[in-house]
Amino acid sequence: MKKHNFNAGPSVLPKFTIENTAKNVLDLEGTGLSIMEISHRSKEFSAIMDESVALMKELLDVPSGYSVLFLHGGASLQFCMIPYNLLNKKAAYLETGSWSSKAIKEAKMFGEVEVVASSKEQNYNFIPRDFRVSGDAEYLHITTNNTIYGTEIKEDIEVPVPLVADTSSDILSRPMDVSKYGLIYGGAQKNLGPAGLAYVIIKDDILGKVDRTIPTILNYKTHIENGSLYNTPPCLAIYASLQTLKWLKGLGGLKVINKMNTDKANMLYDEIERNKLFVSTVKNPADRSIMNVTFVMNENYKDKEADFLQFAVSKGMVGIKGHRSVGGFRASLYNALPKESVIALIDAMKEFEAKA
Amino acid sequence: MKKHNFNAGPSVLPKFTIENTAKNVLDLEGTGLSIMEISHRSKEFSAIMDESVALMKELLDVPSGYSVLFLHGGASLQFCMIPYNLLNKKAAYLETGSWSSKAIKEAKMFGEVEVVASSKEQNYNFIPRDFRVSGDAEYLHITTNNTIYGTEIKEDIEVPVPLVADTSSDILSRPMDVSKYGLIYGGAQKNLGPAGLAYVIIKDDILGKVDRTIPTILNYKTHIENGSLYNTPPCLAIYASLQTLKWLKGLGGLKVINKMNTDKANMLYDEIERNKLFVSTVKNPADRSIMNVTFVMNENYKDKEADFLQFAVSKGMVGIKGHRSVGGFRASLYNALPKESVIALIDAMKEFEAKA
Repeated sequence: MKKHNFNAGPSVLPKFTIENTAKNVLDLEGTGLSIMEISHRSKEFSAIMDESVALMKELLDVPSGYSVLFLHGGASLQFCMIPYNLLNKKAAYLETGSWSSKAIKEAKMFGEVEVVASSKEQNYNFIPRDFRVSGDAEYLHITTNNTIYGTEIKEDIEVPVPLVADTSSDILSRPMDVSKYGLIYGGAQKNLGPAGLAYVIIKDDILGKVDRTIPTILNYKTHIENGSLYNTPPCLAIYASLQTLKWLKGLGGLKVINKMNTDKANMLYDEIERNKLFVSTVKNPADRSIMNVTFVMNENYKDKEADFLQFAVSKGMVGIKGHRSVGGFRASLYNALPKESVIALIDAMKEFEAKA
Repeated sequence: MKKHNFNAGPSVLPKFTIENTAKNVLDLEGTGLSIMEISHRSKEFSAIMDESVALMKELLDVPSGYSVLFLHGGASLQFCMIPYNLLNKKAAYLETGSWSSKAIKEAKMFGEVEVVASSKEQNYNFIPRDFRVSGDAEYLHITTNNTIYGTEIKEDIEVPVPLVADTSSDILSRPMDVSKYGLIYGGAQKNLGPAGLAYVIIKDDILGKVDRTIPTILNYKTHIENGSLYNTPPCLAIYASLQTLKWLKGLGGLKVINKMNTDKANMLYDEIERNKLFVSTVKNPADRSIMNVTFVMNENYKDKEADFLQFAVSKGMVGIKGHRSVGGFRASLYNALPKESVIALIDAMKEFEAKA
């Protein structure tokens, strides 16, 4: 049976990425060696790294003065690297979910943290918009998409200090105005490639302003100076991610994918509104994520959640169960999720409603 | 033409690892999803993680009281994590090459470092054996195999403080007495799997003795408590490494592979001794690495190095050029390098000698 992969991450990847990765695990472009077996200093891998950086820059229209890095680890290591490199005295954080909360916890080990606003009291079911960032904050940290709670900051906000954004679950899902950010980062395992890789887009001139000694491997300058080749990079993960970047370019870029993503999400949100059984966990439509659609059953049908879950699984749906912090259901609609999977989910919702 | 992969790392992997990885990148054991697309919380991935930990423990005969971790990054991140977690006041380091020198540099950011002995003055061409470790050192750090310089500590040394060993380039190449170590670590990309994964075997009771605050992601306790699942692990790299562990077990384990490795290395060292053109860069046979054989041309034939390199490349040899710090040639004979490749190299050396 065909699987509909709604996993929150690691998650669905383009067929193009999967097939090319499998092929080059066997033999990297006719070299006779696996992509896992070549030197990261070889001309073959240099070409892979260069093209990955160039395509990230092209797709996101990264202005000059910024570096694109591919590093080990995921967003969690960045939660520590960001304050290590940028927090001298005080940083501002917007708290919109578990991930921003984790980022705040790490930053507090390095200096003062001002939480400018938080939706924690309402179980993170909205994006706070009414906040002020003090001019003495060294940066403002935001999480653009909250995978668990289904909320998203879909516009590039303007603040008077460098804006640092964890974009793990919505990078490359829409065009961004990179010039509004000081640092954009995330783990690869949602819209880019396999887990074990982080991307960092950094404005070079925000660095060099902290007094502390930074361990070499945690210092962004190390990686900028070495073109992400200070140590052996995760070559296979970068190769796979490059395939996704090529696929995105082939589709027509971020405007095109954004239209496709918005269409998919709107179809599903419309069905949630229409269907008597379901209700969105995010009240304000402006806050609803295009990437992760979270919904529960209406009060009157609460006892049917387990049944619907089982029904959806029987129709080939994978990863549809909501995170325990929210309950109900979560459908992750990342770039690579085909529209057919959303239609299959909507059909299942309708069929289940008819029987209820 | 068949390639003989003598790369120093990333390097040759077993055909079993490559083929199974490629297959499961397409479809993980019939789930209909790629190993890159499944949740790290799924039962499929739990089974992969559990089996990887169990096989590391079985192959290395890890005693109780130790944890086996699979983490993001490579050895370079460990250079920083080790002093972060273990160095309160003073640590001892044995300097046997560039990698131990890098580890020393990082440790100095965290406390006092006593270099108990160094072979730096002799371009690291031997392993210092005559050193004393003060009882007030919190640990002694060694690099068991020096990839660049072709030297190796082939026995499990005994010291009065916890022994911390970077085994990146000889892990799983021979049986070890793990009970003699406090911490064994390394990057996966030589004897285990693709780059982007580190293994750590740690004696639990050496932790919790430093006064500083440790960022969550850099704290070994975080990963012990969460079974290497605190954050999304590099699932694909772990899957590939598991294949190598299975292959090793299938061969008969570390005694068997050690015999194979020693035979391969002896054949090559014997030819270097016999052949009038070549000379080992490591004078003391006891110090010669079984994993990385470094050699140069005899003084009288120095001008033929470029020619031999070209000749070897024409015979399908890859990665045979020596590191710039040593010059000449380096043949990395990791676990997965077939004996046939060593024979091919020896044949090339003989053929070139006959023409010289």
